[in-house]
Amino acid sequence: MKSFVEYSSNSDFSIHNIPFGVTVFNKEFIGCCTRIGDQIIDLATLYDLGYFEDIEGLDDNIFEAYTLNEFIELGKPVTNAVRLKIQELLLEGSILSKDEKTIEEAFYDVDQVKMMMPVHIPNYTDFYSSIEHATNVGKMFRDPANALLPNWKHLPVGYHGRASSIVVSGTEINRPKGQMKPADADKPVFGPCKQLDFELEMAFIVNKNTEMGESISTKDAEDAIFGMVVFNDWSARDIQSWEYVPLGPFLAKNFGSSVSPWVVTLEALEPFKTASPTQDPEVLDYLKFEGDKNYDINLEVYLQPENGEENLISESNYKHMYWNMTQQLAHHTVNGCNVEVGDLYASGTISGSDPKSFGSMLELTWRGQNPIQLSNGQERKFIDDNDIVTMKAWAEKDGVRVGFGEVAGKIIPTK
Amino acid sequence: MKSFVEYSSNSDFSIHNIPFGVTVFNKEFIGCCTRIGDQIIDLATLYDLGYFEDIEGLDDNIFEAYTLNEFIELGKPVTNAVRLKIQELLLEGSILSKDEKTIEEAFYDVDQVKMMMPVHIPNYTDFYSSIEHATNVGKMFRDPANALLPNWKHLPVGYHGRASSIVVSGTEINRPKGQMKPADADKPVFGPCKQLDFELEMAFIVNKNTEMGESISTKDAEDAIFGMVVFNDWSARDIQSWEYVPLGPFLAKNFGSSVSPWVVTLEALEPFKTASPTQDPEVLDYLKFEGDKNYDINLEVYLQPENGEENLISESNYKHMYWNMTQQLAHHTVNGCNVEVGDLYASGTISGSDPKSFGSMLELTWRGQNPIQLSNGQERKFIDDNDIVTMKAWAEKDGVRVGFGEVAGKIIPTK
Repeated sequence: MKSFVEYSSNSDFSIHNIPFGVTVFNKEFIGCCTRIGDQIIDLATLYDLGYFEDIEGLDDNIFEAYTLNEFIELGKPVTNAVRLKIQELLLEGSILSKDEKTIEEAFYDVDQVKMMMPVHIPNYTDFYSSIEHATNVGKMFRDPANALLPNWKHLPVGYHGRASSIVVSGTEINRPKGQMKPADADKPVFGPCKQLDFELEMAFIVNKNTEMGESISTKDAEDAIFGMVVFNDWSARDIQSWEYVPLGPFLAKNFGSSVSPWVVTLEALEPFKTASPTQDPEVLDYLKFEGDKNYDINLEVYLQPENGEENLISESNYKHMYWNMTQQLAHHTVNGCNVEVGDLYASGTISGSDPKSFGSMLELTWRGQNPIQLSNGQERKFIDDNDIVTMKAWAEKDGVRVGFGEVAGKIIPTK
Repeated sequence: MKSFVEYSSNSDFSIHNIPFGVTVFNKEFIGCCTRIGDQIIDLATLYDLGYFEDIEGLDDNIFEAYTLNEFIELGKPVTNAVRLKIQELLLEGSILSKDEKTIEEAFYDVDQVKMMMPVHIPNYTDFYSSIEHATNVGKMFRDPANALLPNWKHLPVGYHGRASSIVVSGTEINRPKGQMKPADADKPVFGPCKQLDFELEMAFIVNKNTEMGESISTKDAEDAIFGMVVFNDWSARDIQSWEYVPLGPFLAKNFGSSVSPWVVTLEALEPFKTASPTQDPEVLDYLKFEGDKNYDINLEVYLQPENGEENLISESNYKHMYWNMTQQLAHHTVNGCNVEVGDLYASGTISGSDPKSFGSMLELTWRGQNPIQLSNGQERKFIDDNDIVTMKAWAEKDGVRVGFGEVAGKIIPTK
């Protein structure tokens, strides 16, 4: 497939991708869009000009919207048809390629737009599905000899997070204040968090509303997942270690989480499916699945200090997940918990077995014992004020590249 | 104060209350309403007829709505003025009392309406603020000698819950299925929950949106709280005990929670304020507060088996809370976590020191050891299929009664 839009061979936004997002065009109006190379395409204008008129079920211009929720609620038959239509329109020799007036009107350079939150998120859950991450944390905070808790290999452990404070890439994050209890103190102290961390995660977005009492099987789960984003689950480790017993992380997490602006569809990621790890002990029936359900997606984390360069500090891969998305969604709904369009389900920190592939500062520096050396001569145990953390994700195979762009966030000093 | 509407002396909905809710009138249309005695009053009609025209800031008929969110977002100056205006209109001799046409049009008998969820809930947090409950649970599941964890007296422990599955009183709740690990089993089993429980709670609803990075002090918290509801945090104890480490309760809670349909304002509850317990050790500055911040609200739980009578199984009081609402909200936002209009913050199970005042079957039966005897000769360790659990809440002082009505829910067999 070759597009009439030119882009570099390492662009995340190839003709094979066709992701969806929401943007402000020219600081003037907001709407749903897609991207190819460095061109952002206004889907509402394509709709108005009749380019989607043969797609059944797309009866209104729901691209004139502040979020993708209405669009993705139409379900796979419609959203897949739209994606394939856009792909067809972007091919060399297409009708659109010859329609200079529409290209003039609907195509924007990436510099002319400001990306917004792609969806409204009614509910957010964070899983804990990387065995290397769970093992690392268990070794550090509990028992090195029994790092995984007894339930870990039997169910995808997860917890509810805070939806209100999920923000789009580029949004600055305030360093949280809170209670911490230093090891040598006899009572807690209050102040700005001193162990601010990132967590490298991927997340999926659901495209349907279910009723209470309804479940989604592993077999049906992919139909209920519109696509994925890159996710930074910012974490305040010193607040977390004091507050989290017995009910889990709370203020250590809910001050902010960052998502990439582009939702890459499961269909675009289909070529990058890869074998899932053997699960031993065998899981209960409702968690069994068939076929390859992991995805080979390269992940990178960069740390850029104030007035310094970007430093690559982690190289991981989403294929490391022990529990896959179909299992996560089946587990979440097996008790009848209802899901809503736009719900975001995050993977938990994605670490590999190589220490260079660990997905948090906590693990990379082993709780601060082995600081990371930066190119400007500084070192980091955790994240400093004015540091920018950027995560990148892309899949690549047989010359085809499909990526997410990035999720970036700068930590600003406590107000 | 005497109303022209007659009601019995033990009505929760006296002239002193004036709660807010959302209802379907005559199976025909939906809108915001208040209640006095057994009369439900359509606020949109009162608005249209000009009864609120002197209230500044009430520029649209936002009572024509599916939720109270737009109304409560107007803030206390407006919502208090509306409540006081309604109270004035309901007094003997008022203009409204002589306006038979309007009474005919806007007043409905309680049998003519179906109450709906009062608010859309963007985010839901559950605290754990009763020292008796936390102590009971700690004794049962951890160490009787050190029942409270070290953080408990330093901060109001809380966790994020699932907003999607919060439903209004009267909605049937499906018994959840899930993983459980019986004490004598070497691996988990799957099936319907066998230890289904209720949790007697109160919850408050927030009336404003804050920005990320912003905090609400204990001093400002009451201005940000529109009112309260009664809350049943249904819990699957056998699922919970297996899943909850290390990230907290998840599927054991998110299959459903029930709220009472009437939101009683903090202003209506003001006369029932009572001293807060001494907190020792002293709390950090951001958790300090002045004045009485607890409320003397009587609580009752009834269990009605299929084809049987209601059995009173618990008598508690909201005044038992160790941590009060102003502390809960100050703690939740001290790290800059933003709140949204309609957010619901629940107290956690409310238990007193008397075993008859425990707020869950877990505590009342001490993990099933002391079953409850019902009037029909049956006994209960936990909740059976087709049992109805009803919670009632009301405050009473100097002949003035202000109540919540009830939150009721029936457990139906697993699908």
